[in-house]
Amino acid sequence: MAAKALPVSPLAVPLPAVPPIAGVTLGVAAAGIRYKGRNDLTLMQFAPGTTVAGVFTRNKCPGAPVDWCRAALKGGKARALVVNAGNANVFTGKPGRDAVQATADAAAGLVGCKPREVFLASTGVIGETLPHEKLTAALPALHGQLAADGWEGAARGIMTTDTFPKACVRTALIGDTEVTIAGIAKGSGMVAPDMATMLCFIATDAKVPAAALQAILKKGVDASFNRTTVDSDTSTSDTVLVFATGQAKHPRVPAEGGAMLKGFARALHDLLLDLALQVVRDGEGAQKLVRIDVTGATTARSAQKIAMAIANSPLVKTAIAGEDANWGRIVMAVGKAGEPADRDRLSVAVGGTWMAREGGVVPGYDEAPVVAHMKGREIEIAVDIGLGRGKGTAWTCDLTHGYIDINGSYRS
Amino acid sequence: MAAKALPVSPLAVPLPAVPPIAGVTLGVAAAGIRYKGRNDLTLMQFAPGTTVAGVFTRNKCPGAPVDWCRAALKGGKARALVVNAGNANVFTGKPGRDAVQATADAAAGLVGCKPREVFLASTGVIGETLPHEKLTAALPALHGQLAADGWEGAARGIMTTDTFPKACVRTALIGDTEVTIAGIAKGSGMVAPDMATMLCFIATDAKVPAAALQAILKKGVDASFNRTTVDSDTSTSDTVLVFATGQAKHPRVPAEGGAMLKGFARALHDLLLDLALQVVRDGEGAQKLVRIDVTGATTARSAQKIAMAIANSPLVKTAIAGEDANWGRIVMAVGKAGEPADRDRLSVAVGGTWMAREGGVVPGYDEAPVVAHMKGREIEIAVDIGLGRGKGTAWTCDLTHGYIDINGSYRS
Repeated sequence: MAAKALPVSPLAVPLPAVPPIAGVTLGVAAAGIRYKGRNDLTLMQFAPGTTVAGVFTRNKCPGAPVDWCRAALKGGKARALVVNAGNANVFTGKPGRDAVQATADAAAGLVGCKPREVFLASTGVIGETLPHEKLTAALPALHGQLAADGWEGAARGIMTTDTFPKACVRTALIGDTEVTIAGIAKGSGMVAPDMATMLCFIATDAKVPAAALQAILKKGVDASFNRTTVDSDTSTSDTVLVFATGQAKHPRVPAEGGAMLKGFARALHDLLLDLALQVVRDGEGAQKLVRIDVTGATTARSAQKIAMAIANSPLVKTAIAGEDANWGRIVMAVGKAGEPADRDRLSVAVGGTWMAREGGVVPGYDEAPVVAHMKGREIEIAVDIGLGRGKGTAWTCDLTHGYIDINGSYRS
Repeated sequence: MAAKALPVSPLAVPLPAVPPIAGVTLGVAAAGIRYKGRNDLTLMQFAPGTTVAGVFTRNKCPGAPVDWCRAALKGGKARALVVNAGNANVFTGKPGRDAVQATADAAAGLVGCKPREVFLASTGVIGETLPHEKLTAALPALHGQLAADGWEGAARGIMTTDTFPKACVRTALIGDTEVTIAGIAKGSGMVAPDMATMLCFIATDAKVPAAALQAILKKGVDASFNRTTVDSDTSTSDTVLVFATGQAKHPRVPAEGGAMLKGFARALHDLLLDLALQVVRDGEGAQKLVRIDVTGATTARSAQKIAMAIANSPLVKTAIAGEDANWGRIVMAVGKAGEPADRDRLSVAVGGTWMAREGGVVPGYDEAPVVAHMKGREIEIAVDIGLGRGKGTAWTCDLTHGYIDINGSYRS
């Protein structure tokens, strides 16, 4: 990993204070997996009866912890989460599967649950055997120190090339009872479609049936993490897990969820988008946060595909790094998306100023506000395809020397 | 465009001497489109009876010259080619179409042919109106100076961010008669699947029916330019044109081509691959040429898609720039391709050394030859999927600070 500390992203946002979530205790320890002198092991314990939902990478070569979580999710129950940073336990064959089993067994023994109620995530280098004995050696002392106020430490403990810790808190009403949702996330590169963040862990005191929780989570991830990209690469470890401890005293939620969970779903979706954008704000080398709105496509799906093509274009992203409102490259990216588009109906705006309309440059458009907008930290691009009513939005960051610095020497 | 001259790519190859091609005269001039103090306008004239074939970008927002060429190609005949550098005449609406018509009319008048026998290509900035009156003003004097030995000048005249001129010559037998094929190309960024080079122009003295020429060209482009990528972006201007002047005295080739053109097709395909790799060697900021061979996929198409996913991964490309044989990132890229792959059957080699086999690191593999290989200029990656017999190959370059330098300030 990068030998020297990276400068904090200029797009960083302050870490919010995360209150205790009833039914959750957590803590961190330094297991010495890869990093020296910092915490790299995070343990969360959940009250009996906690339900769980999860969404994972669609990468065809997932890590052993992802395989484990997918299988464990079938039970719908969770009692613990173990996360390590520094080694992703990906492409590690049988030793990788053994590491997962040994870690789950150890945590289950401490918590007093079945191994299949333990969820696992690993992030870091791919293809090196995870020294799980360092994890299992550190877990007993860590388990003895779990506390309700450990969220800040956990947000820091799961970081790899992240330059700032990421957390978010929301509240919602279920019936007349306020419930709280808290989440932490990490990720700054290898962040792309089909699960943008590497890791995101959310807990709530709400009592939500696992199936309803899964449906709400899936929808929220589609509208947040799956609409962000840093570099078009898709991690083998992407994991979002939500744990609902059921400690809040609200009326019983029916198995299918339904209207009673409307406010909860909205709050969870808002939290997911907040965390997803924090990950983009920490995109490796990012100097600018970029929002791309596509309207007028033939379908919403088509609009989203075009928005992601723009968001993933290295030429668009380097132009933004150079503070150049190069709408020609945006047109190129629209065209390469492979979706229905008619060059002569296309319009492009930057920072709210329409520079190109219906196939040509807008004669005498005022360049001054565009130039000023490009110098800012948050860039807005709007593209109207002019063919239909499909809308989509994607978020990304610019592509800078910092990205090359970080990724050209990651293992050294 | 980049204000100062870029350093020549360390992967550059010497410009070969290009002999005259019977039936072709050519020359260059400084029309002052965008660059100062260099030639930016190229004119080729072909003997009556010249046939033509072409393959173009699949970008949905092509430039006006691409639209023009597609229409002109239906006639199958060519008498002239006009190419300008510095302005791509893309997304320029009616003024763009007017510019194309005016340029073709002017060249047709000088050559004495129909405008539809004039082929056009433009490369450079997108979205700015092409000042075609500068082209038409320069054409008459340029036409007066056309000569058979102008290939080197043309190879230089079509460059934009290229750091070295690109040309290739091959010979073949049709019957017992030797024919010559000469080609030039330009391109160094926005070079991606579905026509990798921006511009490539080839001429031969062979007499080949247009339909047969088109079939041979299409096959050759699929096996060369369409297997290379610099940055995953697809230009709006990609154009490959082949002109066959028919001046060679070989027996008549039947309309469908067939066995008689076997040697010719092989030579043309070889030339196309040579030029495609020259373009990758001049990839913006490239320090290393990378070849990726995928075997064992379920189909050839699947293998090719996986090879391109690896070639387009920013994380793989930055690792190569950092001389890091990070096979974990290669596994990630295989997984994100979305093609059938089984993590536990996957093998990865770098420079001929198998580092990972069937799902795990090869215990005690010799790292020394891998480290030495990564320090070289030409990097070879082999991936065996372990599922079938599908094979594919892709070429790319590394992703370096040079790419950011060039593309963060292209228009300034």
